[in-house]
Amino acid sequence: MKYTLPKGFLANGICCGVKKKRKDLAVLYSETACRTAALFTKNSVKAAPVILARKQLRKNSDIRAVVVNSGNANCMTGARGLADAKKMAEKAAAVLNVPKDTVVVSSTGIIGQFMRMEPILDGMSGLVAGLSRDGINDAADGIMTTDRFRKISSRTFDIGGVPVTLTGIAKGAGMIDPNMATMLCYLLTDANMSRDAVRKALKDSSDVSFNAITVDGDMSTNDTVMLMANGMAENRLIKENGAGFGIFRKNLDEVTEELARMVVLDGEGATKLMEVKVKGARTSAEAKKAAKAIAGSLLVKCAVLGGDPNWGRVASSAGGSGVKFDPEKMDITLDGVAFLRNGKARGKVDRKTTSVFKGHDVKIEVDLHNGRSEARVFSCDISKKYIALNSYYTT
Amino acid sequence: MKYTLPKGFLANGICCGVKKKRKDLAVLYSETACRTAALFTKNSVKAAPVILARKQLRKNSDIRAVVVNSGNANCMTGARGLADAKKMAEKAAAVLNVPKDTVVVSSTGIIGQFMRMEPILDGMSGLVAGLSRDGINDAADGIMTTDRFRKISSRTFDIGGVPVTLTGIAKGAGMIDPNMATMLCYLLTDANMSRDAVRKALKDSSDVSFNAITVDGDMSTNDTVMLMANGMAENRLIKENGAGFGIFRKNLDEVTEELARMVVLDGEGATKLMEVKVKGARTSAEAKKAAKAIAGSLLVKCAVLGGDPNWGRVASSAGGSGVKFDPEKMDITLDGVAFLRNGKARGKVDRKTTSVFKGHDVKIEVDLHNGRSEARVFSCDISKKYIALNSYYTT
Repeated sequence: MKYTLPKGFLANGICCGVKKKRKDLAVLYSETACRTAALFTKNSVKAAPVILARKQLRKNSDIRAVVVNSGNANCMTGARGLADAKKMAEKAAAVLNVPKDTVVVSSTGIIGQFMRMEPILDGMSGLVAGLSRDGINDAADGIMTTDRFRKISSRTFDIGGVPVTLTGIAKGAGMIDPNMATMLCYLLTDANMSRDAVRKALKDSSDVSFNAITVDGDMSTNDTVMLMANGMAENRLIKENGAGFGIFRKNLDEVTEELARMVVLDGEGATKLMEVKVKGARTSAEAKKAAKAIAGSLLVKCAVLGGDPNWGRVASSAGGSGVKFDPEKMDITLDGVAFLRNGKARGKVDRKTTSVFKGHDVKIEVDLHNGRSEARVFSCDISKKYIALNSYYTT
Repeated sequence: MKYTLPKGFLANGICCGVKKKRKDLAVLYSETACRTAALFTKNSVKAAPVILARKQLRKNSDIRAVVVNSGNANCMTGARGLADAKKMAEKAAAVLNVPKDTVVVSSTGIIGQFMRMEPILDGMSGLVAGLSRDGINDAADGIMTTDRFRKISSRTFDIGGVPVTLTGIAKGAGMIDPNMATMLCYLLTDANMSRDAVRKALKDSSDVSFNAITVDGDMSTNDTVMLMANGMAENRLIKENGAGFGIFRKNLDEVTEELARMVVLDGEGATKLMEVKVKGARTSAEAKKAAKAIAGSLLVKCAVLGGDPNWGRVASSAGGSGVKFDPEKMDITLDGVAFLRNGKARGKVDRKTTSVFKGHDVKIEVDLHNGRSEARVFSCDISKKYIALNSYYTT
């Protein structure tokens, strides 16, 4: 499929030699400076490029390009790792002929090994030479590790009569090569937005998408989500919560949800996408906590895999989340079928004839009847393949 | 193996018919009243017998007997479930000829189905008639669900020149039949102890044993740990932190650790026992939090299964625990081999020749160099069998 890049953006992805045969170096470039916001992993162990990018963006949020390598996470590599990340950013800035500090770098791959810098530094000229308006597929490929498919989502919409484009790429739950399920996502738009609007849109949209997914509960050392707005659509400036902000948020939410769902679906060995909705919670934080506990429960994941409408596991994992509620009031609905109403079971279900948990997309809905807040979390089932993939891999 | 019951205790276990062929009803009885303490699940969803027992023990902690059934958890069964639990306790008290409210009942098994009470009520006479000094094996069998082996541990030791016996039984990580990994443990002693001493000993010992294990992160609705002391050894009264308390604690810790390790080892599909020690933390709560994150990480469990010294996953799961530390100072030692010192990797290890993570007991040691507190957590690896066991089971 061919995706449109927003105005003024170019992209490319190549194999420079960090990996043997697959693409391992990607660039996203804007002809003008972008107002940029980013969210990084909260893991105490942060990879060198994450440490560098956080520092950079505090000083200067006018960014021109992102360069990403896959194959090595440049994490737990100390001072040398940090110097390597800097070298990579400086080399890219020189070749792109943009100011130092306007190129952000990311890495994903194996932890605890120094980067082989030669292929990356040597590959930079070819990477930049190949920049094109059609390069987004190549860039999306370049950031993949064990991902089984590339993840791109795009929307074009009107802001005050002016067409605006938003295009995002992501990589997901590849947990073999990189050691961890590193999630990277770059969202590019030609919308004209204030710095605060960029920041708030990214934060709020991530809360209901990337921060609402769980594959195996582990948080990567390299997770990065970025939004870059170069303003080249020349729409009237979108301010935080001002005119056009709602439309932009709506489209951003669609793109981030689509990418987040793809990340979950690509969870290693996953066979089904699980959507968990908790409502009737006292606060949305509590709703999310309970939903994450259900979505992350190994026993619930196993039940989904086996097509077993095991509502007892759903009840118990919600109860074990730390969220207080009265189980005597609880409702549990699985794929539209009510299994529990006001804490009372609806009797036995013939697992062989029911269609519950048999499809590709399964839904778990819990009402705690304890308030008015709700939250939704996406997850996947777990399969023997996950275990096989993750147990036989050499550091 | 033949285990000694403490003075004045009798036990039995039979098949009354809740399950088809295996033992499903157990009793532990003391000739005199026991000072009793208990810890129950913190899950918001609590089984009927847990609700009843908590209430009972608040009123009266002089307990004469415990009766446990397996096969049905009597959970999410509402008012009828609570009435059933009461009936079971009252019937047992009548047959044992002890005061009402001095019999505690527990249940473990499937969630969300009403108990069939006839076999339990009808079986009570036979259960009590068979009480004997040698009945502890039968009782330990009666509380099992999918456990592969019975769990008993016993110590006899001197308190001020007087021999005292402590014997405990437990059931563990059976996650198929009961829906969840219900853990039950009953500790019996003839030590003469104050109420406060019983309570404190149980609390402190559970913190370093039962509360320091993780199999799949799910908390059961029925978890119960009890300590009953009938004083029949006639030693000088052990007061909280007084003479003899330390010796009792030491032996209690040995028994609870032994039982906790058995529970972990019996984790469904587990092939290896994992001991995670985190030291150099600011507080012991932080040490435990980090240790639990490592021990509970699916990716770490997979690495242990595969015999892969994947220290990157250990570092990352510690970092993702929410505990703040400086990764540049971190040490990671796997089975005695230093893989990380002061945040620096010790180079590649040949996975084929190393013995790390190849044995039955594996050790992960992390030093955060951030303080003086430490904690230890036991866990197990995960295998394809776990997935198979837990995905194909009918509610």
